[in-house]
Amino acid sequence: MITATEILPKFENLLERKAYEKIRREAFDYIARGAGSEATMQENLRAFSKWKIRPRILRNVSEIELSCTLLNQQLSSPLLVAPIGVQRIAYPEGELASARAARQLDVPFVVSSAASYSMEDIANELGDSSRWFQLYCSLEYSVTKSLVQRAETNGYSAIVITVDTPVLGIRETDAHNQYSPLEEGEGFGNYMNDPAFRALLEQSPEEDMNAALQKQIEIIDQPSLDWEELKKVRKLTNLPILLKGVLHPEDAKLALANNIDGIIVSNHGGRQLDHCIASLDALPDIAHVIQKRIPILLDSGIRTGVDVFKALALGADAVLLGRPLIYGLAINGEDGVKQVIQKIHHELEISMALAGVRTVQEINSNFLFKE
Amino acid sequence: MITATEILPKFENLLERKAYEKIRREAFDYIARGAGSEATMQENLRAFSKWKIRPRILRNVSEIELSCTLLNQQLSSPLLVAPIGVQRIAYPEGELASARAARQLDVPFVVSSAASYSMEDIANELGDSSRWFQLYCSLEYSVTKSLVQRAETNGYSAIVITVDTPVLGIRETDAHNQYSPLEEGEGFGNYMNDPAFRALLEQSPEEDMNAALQKQIEIIDQPSLDWEELKKVRKLTNLPILLKGVLHPEDAKLALANNIDGIIVSNHGGRQLDHCIASLDALPDIAHVIQKRIPILLDSGIRTGVDVFKALALGADAVLLGRPLIYGLAINGEDGVKQVIQKIHHELEISMALAGVRTVQEINSNFLFKE
Amino acid sequence: MITATEILPKFENLLERKAYEKIRREAFDYIARGAGSEATMQENLRAFSKWKIRPRILRNVSEIELSCTLLNQQLSSPLLVAPIGVQRIAYPEGELASARAARQLDVPFVVSSAASYSMEDIANELGDSSRWFQLYCSLEYSVTKSLVQRAETNGYSAIVITVDTPVLGIRETDAHNQYSPLEEGEGFGNYMNDPAFRALLEQSPEEDMNAALQKQIEIIDQPSLDWEELKKVRKLTNLPILLKGVLHPEDAKLALANNIDGIIVSNHGGRQLDHCIASLDALPDIAHVIQKRIPILLDSGIRTGVDVFKALALGADAVLLGRPLIYGLAINGEDGVKQVIQKIHHELEISMALAGVRTVQEINSNFLFKE
Amino acid sequence: MITATEILPKFENLLERKAYEKIRREAFDYIARGAGSEATMQENLRAFSKWKIRPRILRNVSEIELSCTLLNQQLSSPLLVAPIGVQRIAYPEGELASARAARQLDVPFVVSSAASYSMEDIANELGDSSRWFQLYCSLEYSVTKSLVQRAETNGYSAIVITVDTPVLGIRETDAHNQYSPLEEGEGFGNYMNDPAFRALLEQSPEEDMNAALQKQIEIIDQPSLDWEELKKVRKLTNLPILLKGVLHPEDAKLALANNIDGIIVSNHGGRQLDHCIASLDALPDIAHVIQKRIPILLDSGIRTGVDVFKALALGADAVLLGRPLIYGLAINGEDGVKQVIQKIHHELEISMALAGVRTVQEINSNFLFKE
Repeated sequence: MITATEILPKFENLLERKAYEKIRREAFDYIARGAGSEATMQENLRAFSKWKIRPRILRNVSEIELSCTLLNQQLSSPLLVAPIGVQRIAYPEGELASARAARQLDVPFVVSSAASYSMEDIANELGDSSRWFQLYCSLEYSVTKSLVQRAETNGYSAIVITVDTPVLGIRETDAHNQYSPLEEGEGFGNYMNDPAFRALLEQSPEEDMNAALQKQIEIIDQPSLDWEELKKVRKLTNLPILLKGVLHPEDAKLALANNIDGIIVSNHGGRQLDHCIASLDALPDIAHVIQKRIPILLDSGIRTGVDVFKALALGADAVLLGRPLIYGLAINGEDGVKQVIQKIHHELEISMALAGVRTVQEINSNFLFKE
Repeated sequence: MITATEILPKFENLLERKAYEKIRREAFDYIARGAGSEATMQENLRAFSKWKIRPRILRNVSEIELSCTLLNQQLSSPLLVAPIGVQRIAYPEGELASARAARQLDVPFVVSSAASYSMEDIANELGDSSRWFQLYCSLEYSVTKSLVQRAETNGYSAIVITVDTPVLGIRETDAHNQYSPLEEGEGFGNYMNDPAFRALLEQSPEEDMNAALQKQIEIIDQPSLDWEELKKVRKLTNLPILLKGVLHPEDAKLALANNIDGIIVSNHGGRQLDHCIASLDALPDIAHVIQKRIPILLDSGIRTGVDVFKALALGADAVLLGRPLIYGLAINGEDGVKQVIQKIHHELEISMALAGVRTVQEINSNFLFKE
Repeated sequence: MITATEILPKFENLLERKAYEKIRREAFDYIARGAGSEATMQENLRAFSKWKIRPRILRNVSEIELSCTLLNQQLSSPLLVAPIGVQRIAYPEGELASARAARQLDVPFVVSSAASYSMEDIANELGDSSRWFQLYCSLEYSVTKSLVQRAETNGYSAIVITVDTPVLGIRETDAHNQYSPLEEGEGFGNYMNDPAFRALLEQSPEEDMNAALQKQIEIIDQPSLDWEELKKVRKLTNLPILLKGVLHPEDAKLALANNIDGIIVSNHGGRQLDHCIASLDALPDIAHVIQKRIPILLDSGIRTGVDVFKALALGADAVLLGRPLIYGLAINGEDGVKQVIQKIHHELEISMALAGVRTVQEINSNFLFKE
Repeated sequence: MITATEILPKFENLLERKAYEKIRREAFDYIARGAGSEATMQENLRAFSKWKIRPRILRNVSEIELSCTLLNQQLSSPLLVAPIGVQRIAYPEGELASARAARQLDVPFVVSSAASYSMEDIANELGDSSRWFQLYCSLEYSVTKSLVQRAETNGYSAIVITVDTPVLGIRETDAHNQYSPLEEGEGFGNYMNDPAFRALLEQSPEEDMNAALQKQIEIIDQPSLDWEELKKVRKLTNLPILLKGVLHPEDAKLALANNIDGIIVSNHGGRQLDHCIASLDALPDIAHVIQKRIPILLDSGIRTGVDVFKALALGADAVLLGRPLIYGLAINGEDGVKQVIQKIHHELEISMALAGVRTVQEINSNFLFKE
């Protein structure tokens, strides 16, 4: 096979390396690696590193306040747990463990469509803690409708529709490893427990694992999805709907025109389009279009509290955290996730104090410097 | 000898490394290495890496269409096999094998003047599949005329005149290896079967291999070639004529003024002028001059489908693929070439779907971002 | 512990490496390492390296004059010893040895609040040589007052108030090493000998080392310090007051408005805010605001005499030297410090001669080039 | 000694490495290394690498003409041998061997004041071949006068006055090696045979080697040299006078005002001021001032024929070649020097042919591209 890229382990940071030591290689690669040449992944980090903070002094920073409001919800910090599927490949308790960590720190948890556990089981762990549901819009309208209704029933307070996955990106390492967590049955938490999905399966000639898998992949890959199709989902629920994967300012305009409630600037952590613009590089133009009319979130490249500061300064209202949490989960389950979130909270607090800002609302581009 | 550069094997990618393992070192070096310090080769890659794609969303990409029209010919994709000579050094069946691969995937094949096999034998393998002929204009008008007539007779539908080789670039590795495929008789496919060329040889005092070689090198090196000389070739045929090796916008203007039918922006894969402008860097100014009046093709630096996307976005109508195909050929003959083309087609399709474009005609610079 | 960064020794220069060989690893790390990812430290060096000197010729440089005037004080060169605490961790005689070196070369010595020895003992070594006192403003007004009075009594001619330490930066290496020189009692030279500080301690339930340490850390961390609070210190003394840690031009304006006598552009050697603007990058905007009304000093990144030249050319009146002197101290005590200062003086002289300037006052941005 | 930098051998190119293998380490270091951190040396190379050539096509380059006119002298190419002293440390026959190489290729030879052999002996080897003399202006007017007269007597056709050495740069490697070729008596070719210099020595209390050395170093170091002093030299001769070491456009203006006949843009190969502007970066502004009224030469960073092309395109009329020739000398004496010059001639010719220029006069900035 001449197309696979042999990638030696190389680590962005100590967290990643420790996770590498904890889980099987194929699972680690699935989590850590990105699409194609990984140019997008590298660009995500480079985009952050080019911005520097120009701090203010003598501003009485004895009280640092991380809390903020997002879609009329009160957040303890501008941080959410990104919708990451198949978390059981990192740790047996998967989303159950990370949800418990999120609950303890009062951080909203975004459940992935492709979670290892069902949204009901995860909601159970979350108790009263805030949760959103990430949706791959199926052309099987019945499944979409069923998933959204279950989300409403189980206290999910927003729907995140991922729009950067009309087809799956090219993951050369997974191809080389001949590894797919879906094929191993790791991402069925929501689907196999869904009545509409099961009804679909019953129509299949062979109601077996392969058929289920095929259906789910069809749902995740949604090449024909467009703004018209999206209107149908809009009618399904009164929950706020956010689009995840917006990178072009023209699409931010369309999001406003289509009454979308929020935007997540994201390139899927560099897992979809290779040589894609860094999410942070895409942020300023989008913030310029949005003009604070709806919230903007960002993911892809956040590793530290300083990164959160920079994203807020360039126009994000909050950020989603992905890989670092999964590394924490792999290293030490619930406690590992907690430690990572606490570390980033601490870094954000210290960065704010040293930059002379007391609240996340004060953070703006006057605190940034780029050559 | 103090002028040779000792170059340890270093590989751009896995494909190159696998090819390295398959063929003799001198042949690999001839294919893989470039002129002088290889600054041009490096720049070719760097030029691509600085552009990022800013994708659009929700555009219904269930049908991706790679086909396009070029010089009134229908192409299955904006990809052609570049004119590469002496392919037998990579694989015994040389151009015959790569031609079969091109035919199966309906990709136009550009036969090099310096092919290992004759254009007749290659045409035989290509059947009805599209073919162009690359010409080094000889001052021996009889040979030029004969080659062009043979091309017409054998169904070649365009003539590509290479204009970046008035003299041969300095290839330090080949000098160090004391290796020249021509001197080993590898590039005589077209010439030794040409009646005009053989007639010339008969005039030589000694009609031997050395004399033939000398004649051919004189033909390839064409230092006195100029626009006036080119007019004679123009009169030889009604086939469209493209110039390969245009890098300066002033020459694009002259090409228009001289009724040239197409331009190939190329620096000969970094094999001619060291420290030359990257072909991709030269493209925008040339596209600005041409204003779509004649087609623009590009080679030098294309490695993946994402590269094809970027070249089209900056003004190319199609691209030519060189080294990657020869590596595929070295690794696995006809199948190797096919796999490489299929991989690039697949990458282009996925990149288009993820960027939100359905046809190659939609690709433009609004999808690009450069800092 | 998943948050610590394992840092292998890597050395900026030979001086650092030699110091590494002389002292225990924890002490070396405390001195050499910086906050977080050390992006600020790296940026401090990169900021210098991007400027080049464009020299003048034929200007008679037979007499090079390094002397200058600062706050009505005559300096032998535009160089001061930065306020560095706990110098005993580098060398048993600590500040006493470095003070003797400064005295011999007539370089002003800035004593740190957190010095290992008391300002009285250090003043004793300095004799008539120039000294300033660096102050962490305590909310315990009595201690601030007492420290300032002792400084006045002991011949200190300026007060440097550090304003970039409302909280302590995140030093991952120290956390990993579980090392704190304060906790080892290394920074008590000024406090344990201070009557006001001791009186405070006597009010503590347990007058022990831990209580003293806690008090001192509270004093150094001064999150509520603001411009209002600063006015109280202003009233305590007629000595000139400089603020150390100014990086934003808006704060330079406020410094002028608050009758501050001088500004030190500094990011605390990259030990406080990670991803902070380089001090040299911050300098030009601040110099533009100040317009020579009060002196501007700079530290963070000065390693050679050429660096001093560049800082002066961009608007600094003088520079403070930190880590290099401590490395000299670690390597060879008083003589080591002297050698480092002499080397930098020599480099500055040679750079000036080769750039065609005779006095430090002549140095300006016409001598610089940046691409 | 804490100031020396330990430098492991690192080689710019194969030529340098081969020279390293041929001569003693101290001599190699003296030749190959630069001032301070070697930032200037690195910048000299970087400055070239950022420019790319944008070639023209179809221009009939069957005849490439390297010859040019400089100061009314006919040159076989725009290349001169730079004034390099103490060549005996590279090869026993030193300047005698390199002069023979220059003569055979009709390349002007600039004899250094600090040559190992006398200008008479070198002139003898040069025969009718073109020669210039490089002068360190001594405040001992008698010596300057005597050297200039000897140059006139021996057929030298221009005087090059080096103005970038008012003091010697800091060469840390030489200090570390405790090596000085002058102290080993290697640079006395011109002085010990000079009647005025010997007369000076006779006035010294001790007429010994140390006194001679001291005198010569005083002559080379010329800190008080200025434009007034230079006028005296101007009066000594009718030969054209060039200033070597001009980097600032203001000094180019002064050169015109002082009736200087030519300018050599140079930073002494990175051997004087560390962090100095690259000579190529300084060239355009100087060319803009000079407006072709007097010739501009350039050295510092020329390694290949492509470099010569770039220097000419940015405004130089010719270039001087230093280190590469000395490496050739070290490797193989006269033949080594010839091979290096021939290689660069060949590269220049090929670069011109491939860029579509027939004469060096045609080379201009339209052939360059910089991002």
